[in-house]
Amino acid sequence: MSTNNSLLHQIAPVSNSQHGKITVVGVGQVGMACAFSILQQGIAREIALVDVLAEKLQGEMMDLQHGLPFTKNCIINAGTNYSITAGSQLCVITAGARQREGESRLALVQRNVEIFKGIVPQLVKYSPATVILVVSNPGCTSFAFHTPFVIIISLVDVLTFVTWKLSGLPSERVFGSGTNLDSARFRFLVSERLNIAPSSCHGWIIGEHGDSSVAVWSGVNVAGVPVISNVGSLEDEEERNKIHKQVVQSAYDIISLKGYTSWAIGLSVAAICQSVLRNTRNVFALSVNIKGLHDVTKDVYLSLPCVIGENGISHIVVQQLNSKEKDALKNSVDSVFAIQKSLML
Amino acid sequence: MSTNNSLLHQIAPVSNSQHGKITVVGVGQVGMACAFSILQQGIAREIALVDVLAEKLQGEMMDLQHGLPFTKNCIINAGTNYSITAGSQLCVITAGARQREGESRLALVQRNVEIFKGIVPQLVKYSPATVILVVSNPGCTSFAFHTPFVIIISLVDVLTFVTWKLSGLPSERVFGSGTNLDSARFRFLVSERLNIAPSSCHGWIIGEHGDSSVAVWSGVNVAGVPVISNVGSLEDEEERNKIHKQVVQSAYDIISLKGYTSWAIGLSVAAICQSVLRNTRNVFALSVNIKGLHDVTKDVYLSLPCVIGENGISHIVVQQLNSKEKDALKNSVDSVFAIQKSLML
Amino acid sequence: MSTNNSLLHQIAPVSNSQHGKITVVGVGQVGMACAFSILQQGIAREIALVDVLAEKLQGEMMDLQHGLPFTKNCIINAGTNYSITAGSQLCVITAGARQREGESRLALVQRNVEIFKGIVPQLVKYSPATVILVVSNPGCTSFAFHTPFVIIISLVDVLTFVTWKLSGLPSERVFGSGTNLDSARFRFLVSERLNIAPSSCHGWIIGEHGDSSVAVWSGVNVAGVPVISNVGSLEDEEERNKIHKQVVQSAYDIISLKGYTSWAIGLSVAAICQSVLRNTRNVFALSVNIKGLHDVTKDVYLSLPCVIGENGISHIVVQQLNSKEKDALKNSVDSVFAIQKSLML
Amino acid sequence: MSTNNSLLHQIAPVSNSQHGKITVVGVGQVGMACAFSILQQGIAREIALVDVLAEKLQGEMMDLQHGLPFTKNCIINAGTNYSITAGSQLCVITAGARQREGESRLALVQRNVEIFKGIVPQLVKYSPATVILVVSNPGCTSFAFHTPFVIIISLVDVLTFVTWKLSGLPSERVFGSGTNLDSARFRFLVSERLNIAPSSCHGWIIGEHGDSSVAVWSGVNVAGVPVISNVGSLEDEEERNKIHKQVVQSAYDIISLKGYTSWAIGLSVAAICQSVLRNTRNVFALSVNIKGLHDVTKDVYLSLPCVIGENGISHIVVQQLNSKEKDALKNSVDSVFAIQKSLML
Repeated sequence: MSTNNSLLHQIAPVSNSQHGKITVVGVGQVGMACAFSILQQGIAREIALVDVLAEKLQGEMMDLQHGLPFTKNCIINAGTNYSITAGSQLCVITAGARQREGESRLALVQRNVEIFKGIVPQLVKYSPATVILVVSNPGCTSFAFHTPFVIIISLVDVLTFVTWKLSGLPSERVFGSGTNLDSARFRFLVSERLNIAPSSCHGWIIGEHGDSSVAVWSGVNVAGVPVISNVGSLEDEEERNKIHKQVVQSAYDIISLKGYTSWAIGLSVAAICQSVLRNTRNVFALSVNIKGLHDVTKDVYLSLPCVIGENGISHIVVQQLNSKEKDALKNSVDSVFAIQKSLML
Repeated sequence: MSTNNSLLHQIAPVSNSQHGKITVVGVGQVGMACAFSILQQGIAREIALVDVLAEKLQGEMMDLQHGLPFTKNCIINAGTNYSITAGSQLCVITAGARQREGESRLALVQRNVEIFKGIVPQLVKYSPATVILVVSNPGCTSFAFHTPFVIIISLVDVLTFVTWKLSGLPSERVFGSGTNLDSARFRFLVSERLNIAPSSCHGWIIGEHGDSSVAVWSGVNVAGVPVISNVGSLEDEEERNKIHKQVVQSAYDIISLKGYTSWAIGLSVAAICQSVLRNTRNVFALSVNIKGLHDVTKDVYLSLPCVIGENGISHIVVQQLNSKEKDALKNSVDSVFAIQKSLML
Repeated sequence: MSTNNSLLHQIAPVSNSQHGKITVVGVGQVGMACAFSILQQGIAREIALVDVLAEKLQGEMMDLQHGLPFTKNCIINAGTNYSITAGSQLCVITAGARQREGESRLALVQRNVEIFKGIVPQLVKYSPATVILVVSNPGCTSFAFHTPFVIIISLVDVLTFVTWKLSGLPSERVFGSGTNLDSARFRFLVSERLNIAPSSCHGWIIGEHGDSSVAVWSGVNVAGVPVISNVGSLEDEEERNKIHKQVVQSAYDIISLKGYTSWAIGLSVAAICQSVLRNTRNVFALSVNIKGLHDVTKDVYLSLPCVIGENGISHIVVQQLNSKEKDALKNSVDSVFAIQKSLML
Repeated sequence: MSTNNSLLHQIAPVSNSQHGKITVVGVGQVGMACAFSILQQGIAREIALVDVLAEKLQGEMMDLQHGLPFTKNCIINAGTNYSITAGSQLCVITAGARQREGESRLALVQRNVEIFKGIVPQLVKYSPATVILVVSNPGCTSFAFHTPFVIIISLVDVLTFVTWKLSGLPSERVFGSGTNLDSARFRFLVSERLNIAPSSCHGWIIGEHGDSSVAVWSGVNVAGVPVISNVGSLEDEEERNKIHKQVVQSAYDIISLKGYTSWAIGLSVAAICQSVLRNTRNVFALSVNIKGLHDVTKDVYLSLPCVIGENGISHIVVQQLNSKEKDALKNSVDSVFAIQKSLML
């Protein structure tokens, strides 16, 4: 239309921005909550949605586009062909397959590996300089929101390792959303007890995303004051375990109550995305290759507090873990490594 | 816990804010996209979610709460009992029932009226000073997202009238989301053709939400320059009708592609909510009692550009409609009025 | 104009919002940086500016108003008469007089007390339910930006006490910006050394605003990990003192370099204002009546981490201070109390 | 420090972002209001401040840095050497010299040309791909805020032409803030009369920034409805001229009342910067080379509505001007061209 109008006098061609592009793979409830949060907070200049479901893609793209007059402008594209992801600065993978009846744990992981083999090399092909954030976690992924189900294992850590291997990227460029959401749940639950804003309650859940995660109580603080030694009920280990258990249980509860989790993971992922695109060097609990830290000698992805910027994770914040916390971390290393070993990559 | 800790020294009791509370009735895809947008943009200090589905309510509440560390703080409550809505400044109704097989048009409306009889008086009882925004529109409501279906009629206008009657509130305090989303779609489609930011493309869809809506082409402009007489292809009425048709078709398309619409209506409603809570006096296309304007002599709700603030709609912007637009509006008045007359309120 | 136009059809009168109003007293560089930050972040629905300088008031009001098309809407008023402040939810006092040549410390304070006698009762008269935030601090106030000068003492703590006494308000409703800015400077300086986002570096400066402030090193942390025992150079007390000294020196440096401080105090105050207006219950280092804490038995205002909401400060976060920190606090109590005793209120 | 600590485990070096950098030349009231707005709205990842005043630079840099804990992170640098501007995506020039007593109009312009000769080639040398936004306008620039003075001529249009010539950049990459602020004032004044949010009142001032500007009344509208034919008092040309005169007079008034203008120009510039850095393609009234439009055959910069993105101005929106408006534009072309011809570039 621009060639045939007297409204617009052209001075130069329209520029196709080369920066600030985010790809979201998987347009299920998690992927769309991520994309919607990224759009609403004005984090990206362009969002590309990829999935195998052409119709759903089209519908979600249109639904986001119609909201543009209420946001800062953003280009929204969607398609089943990865060519639309070209030049992404950050790719967020939320796709994945959930467990079939009778499927073994390993078979499930391997099946997801096959899915990732169709995703990761394509992303790297079209965006060789990208950073990749893995969010996929069977139990809360795109194809799993129609019926009630049981979560058996937490896969985000293994799938982040898989993504790293499949991508050929340096490890700082591949990381998982890991326990960033667990930490947010933790902070909310503590804040609720203290009646203080969650953003002023600091605490970290590390290790394996899900059941085997580790709550680092020593670092839980308000204004730098440790909560553990100053709040009556929290001096009691049982009470502390109750809160941690509530964190772990939350995901199960929400899935059982509404069928999937979406909003909190969307906000959590948007915060990480902003840190990458703006190169802010904020600290988040992310699934990272922890080899060389806390006596770990293998390439295993588990969550620790990480400093992130536009090239991914530059530093890990080294916590002083007590022996119990170290043991829990070691157990996770072993169990995650056992799965990794059996995978055909 | 606050009585038994050495962390916090109390000076005064915690204040329960009396302002900035929004209730969202209906926690389906539309209701939750509204609530999530309101939360993410920091519009309300407190959000109350109400529905008849206790479990879903609980799940959605938890999911929003866990995202709080990534937002400005907000109190999130949810429950089946309307007492939790007390003191709301604004209530957003997204609940409604969709058509059953073989159900007549009138029967569907009446069934929704019965649902609203259970909602509206409760809202007014607990928040006598509230403003009410009706979003419910069979075809895109909370209980209608599981299977493909066909939209037969658009109900938001009738249901806004019904809400007004059931509430006993002055008419400026009750309005519907109407064609605000249609206008956004319109602006996006025009912007796409011109390759200009949607927020710099201005245009209005008025009248009945959905198929019978009216595109006021005379007012479509960029920087105050009418598009219609300056953009080659738009001088052609057929081309213009194609764009308008695309606006109308969008809702059907998205529902057929993804099962429901959510993101754009969420952003649209959040923009309206902000204007009410901040008393900004912005102009939106809202379903309003248009009696006394454009030769309408009956109490009928249809969309026109309205100035809104914290007491609802204070003014309607009076457009100069041509005879065709007036006729379309008149037809809508008649058809909507015909339904209204048959309702048992 | 509204009575004589065919553009707008009135349905209801325009509502004058009763909530979300902030008054800023003093339109010098500090006051205006506060007002501009509050406007730009969309914190208030209405801002009232008060000062004795009628012309400057008018100029500043117009300059803010002309920026409104680029912001969420806000009502901006300005005047020398306190009637325009009526119904404020929060009043920010930035006015004050700086030292004259040869003027004694006590004479300066007393002169400021006289100024406050003209301000505080007027604020309370027109907004009996207000919360008051005292920012005034000779050396960086409205009437002190024309020539280079030397800061002799820090007055914000004493002036907060004075405001409390003059206002007759409960002490939780009156507080000072205190060491909130010192803490921000501290966090920035630490973040610069660690190359991490300042918002992920946590640390608190408490006590007297300015030279006698106390850096609580024990609580300085990244992701809950104490910095003091893990960062080589910070294990050295001398190095820590150097950083603290740099915090204190910053104000002097900036005033000597540019004549006043404005941007950081503006952002700091805006953050506090948002917490009050949204009732968020965030934690800030604020000047508060610390009687009853840390062995203090007198009514003295000094900064400690505080939980604030719409009724002001509800709780103080109780830090475990070491003997040196307690001594420093005690010295400040004595010196501030000595001034207070001599004042004629 | 990072080599000697046990807090941070390095995985990869810190990345120095290559995108999202804005340089602001001139740290007077205008330049700093721009930089502060850009920081506060999180528009840039890095801000570089340049001026000849080393001390003021250092003070302003520190003052912005101390506010970082309250914002999204941003790198702030300042220096007298242009090497710190390297890699800027956008350079904003706010520097300039104001008239000396007895100085002729032409002498003033030429003196500013000499200043720009020291600025523009340096900017292009270090950022060959930059876009340049000229804000400088004697009367409201960095070196002019100490004493009352009279504005004689408006220079932003001429200086934008000069910048274009000195830069050697294609003309779409060089533009001036022009009448973007005049348009904002216009919209505010109209909105005040209608009691509608300024962001819902649309209107454009074009042509020469200042006294000779043109108010395009035909395009002034609310919701696409022309104001001129529907608001009683505005049907009267005299009343319209009064409003336009008030727009022009505003700058003089504010400078006479507070010594300079700052807040509105800061917000106006921030909006333009965001559109460039995010490549949003919004429409603003900017000073652009209008050769080839409205019968202008010379290279002259005057303001028209422009579509901007990351490569600068791609299109001008072509308004239908009446003969009076065209004459006014032609007069401006002649007077601006007369100055240009006499300049030694």
